[in-house]
Amino acid sequence: MGFLSVTEAFSVGVVGASGVVGRTLMADLDSRSFPISELRLFGSVQSEGQPISYAGRVIEVERVRVDRISDLDLVFLCAGGAVSRELAPELRKKCQLVIDSSSAFRHDPTVPLIIPEVNGDRIGEHQGLVANPNCSTAIALMALAPLHRAFGLTRVMASTYQAVSGAGQGGLDELLTNTRADVFSGKTSTDVFGINMAHNILPLIGAVGEGAETDEETKMRREARRILDLPELSVATTCVRVPTLRVHGLSLTVEFERSASVACAVAALAEAEGVVLSEPSSAVDCPNPRGLEGHVEVVVTRLRRAFDSDHWLSFFCFGDQLKKGAATNAVQIAEIWQQLGT
Amino acid sequence: MGFLSVTEAFSVGVVGASGVVGRTLMADLDSRSFPISELRLFGSVQSEGQPISYAGRVIEVERVRVDRISDLDLVFLCAGGAVSRELAPELRKKCQLVIDSSSAFRHDPTVPLIIPEVNGDRIGEHQGLVANPNCSTAIALMALAPLHRAFGLTRVMASTYQAVSGAGQGGLDELLTNTRADVFSGKTSTDVFGINMAHNILPLIGAVGEGAETDEETKMRREARRILDLPELSVATTCVRVPTLRVHGLSLTVEFERSASVACAVAALAEAEGVVLSEPSSAVDCPNPRGLEGHVEVVVTRLRRAFDSDHWLSFFCFGDQLKKGAATNAVQIAEIWQQLGT
Repeated sequence: MGFLSVTEAFSVGVVGASGVVGRTLMADLDSRSFPISELRLFGSVQSEGQPISYAGRVIEVERVRVDRISDLDLVFLCAGGAVSRELAPELRKKCQLVIDSSSAFRHDPTVPLIIPEVNGDRIGEHQGLVANPNCSTAIALMALAPLHRAFGLTRVMASTYQAVSGAGQGGLDELLTNTRADVFSGKTSTDVFGINMAHNILPLIGAVGEGAETDEETKMRREARRILDLPELSVATTCVRVPTLRVHGLSLTVEFERSASVACAVAALAEAEGVVLSEPSSAVDCPNPRGLEGHVEVVVTRLRRAFDSDHWLSFFCFGDQLKKGAATNAVQIAEIWQQLGT
Repeated sequence: MGFLSVTEAFSVGVVGASGVVGRTLMADLDSRSFPISELRLFGSVQSEGQPISYAGRVIEVERVRVDRISDLDLVFLCAGGAVSRELAPELRKKCQLVIDSSSAFRHDPTVPLIIPEVNGDRIGEHQGLVANPNCSTAIALMALAPLHRAFGLTRVMASTYQAVSGAGQGGLDELLTNTRADVFSGKTSTDVFGINMAHNILPLIGAVGEGAETDEETKMRREARRILDLPELSVATTCVRVPTLRVHGLSLTVEFERSASVACAVAALAEAEGVVLSEPSSAVDCPNPRGLEGHVEVVVTRLRRAFDSDHWLSFFCFGDQLKKGAATNAVQIAEIWQQLGT
């Protein structure tokens, strides 16, 4: 909807505007008609001066400097943990709200970690700063939260099928460069992923930490526990990169406290906002990453009993990493903040 | 080693010789020096007369006819379930041994289902016919069997990352055609997979059966129970096709009867024949499908505690679908049969 001069509109800043999450976020602000009176874009010295179009205007990227940003109403941080750690402490004091897409503050007790459809009611607890969850966590919890409300989650096993956009534009570029080398010609690169991801998978995302778990796997467990307010929830995750572009998949097998029939699970998911249920009878009508690019909903498919038990279900879910897994969730946080006037 | 005229050598037939499993099997017979006095190749009417080289000779594919095959000592069936169902009942009476790579006889009580390193001692029970397991099952059990012997398996959760070679040469061709269209130009096809598998994943392999489980998922549970001789083992699998060429991956989370420390699990796997353990500290040294093409060993990686419990482990494993997942396991069955003189 472009720019508004009404009093209900906000001056907005996007830090990391030239990145793939920043650009998706701007497209969402526009298409979802977020009321903006002024939009300022910020980036590193490399992107300073870069023209980016928004709602028919061209805006030049400014170099990040905290004093240039701090007079804005609402700031989205999408430039990684280091930039967020540097800027957020000052900005949260001066701006009305800062929404951080990095992992820097996701476990700070003064910073709510929000998926609007799951725990949007916690937005009121913000002290100037709200955290946007990890992409795989956001997508998984869109499906898990309605099932938890219905049956009580006790144990979650997740194996991910994560798209290369999780590593930003560089990840997308490197996959396509290497794929072209496989089927046509050209040089290959492993700068982003460490290995050639064309026609390949990588069952190790991030840094390997204590107990041989990766930080990506630790994030999923810790964030799921915090968002669902289940500090003891048993979660085992294996995070795997696959050569898809921007839609993440997750294979989940889940145990519940109470009896969880497939029929009741279908009913719980059918009522859930932002979730679409698919029951394919063959590969031809099975949801898949190519078909779901750009969709904001999380798609749940292959829902079925596991272990021949009333307390276990298996299912698969998909979500666009750049949309519900990052940018759209951040914009939805801004929307509930605006609607609730908090 | 080519052909032998000694009495310890066998006349061998390969049905489905022009397929990708058949060709891998012949390469294995040669490189592993299986003692062959005569090799005859069989195929459909389409491949009749096709010249295939083996150990420096050229052999023409003959059209399948049971009376042409039945005077051979050893026959490998690699042409799918329908051909196996047609030929095996007659051949098992006349040949010394028939090794079937299809799923047709895997649950026939008169047909042992064999992974040599796991239950090779059952070869003596054969009545002319031995079944070769499903590719994902064979790869998973290479890792699971040593852990079962050490700690007693009670519950297995598996999510697969299955290469397109599982759908044969047609699957490989379709992926590469569609990938070329993505990054260069050309027409796409969905004849083999139902959807375009380039930069895509498909969480539905085979036909959807009772309870929304696919037959690929049912196979894994039934075959694991039979091979491990654990008819009540709890197994939940989700089978997913990914755009890799020929190396399958599996994400496993497993519960044990007895305490299973990581150190003891490492020791059990280190002793296991045909298994290689990898403990990567970063993506650069993480095993991956591109790096493992053609390897016969199953590689176990990312082994760690799950649920912070002494009774649960998570790990990832890889195996070449055409080698341990199909052809090499069949040749190994022939080897133990020959060695044991059964």
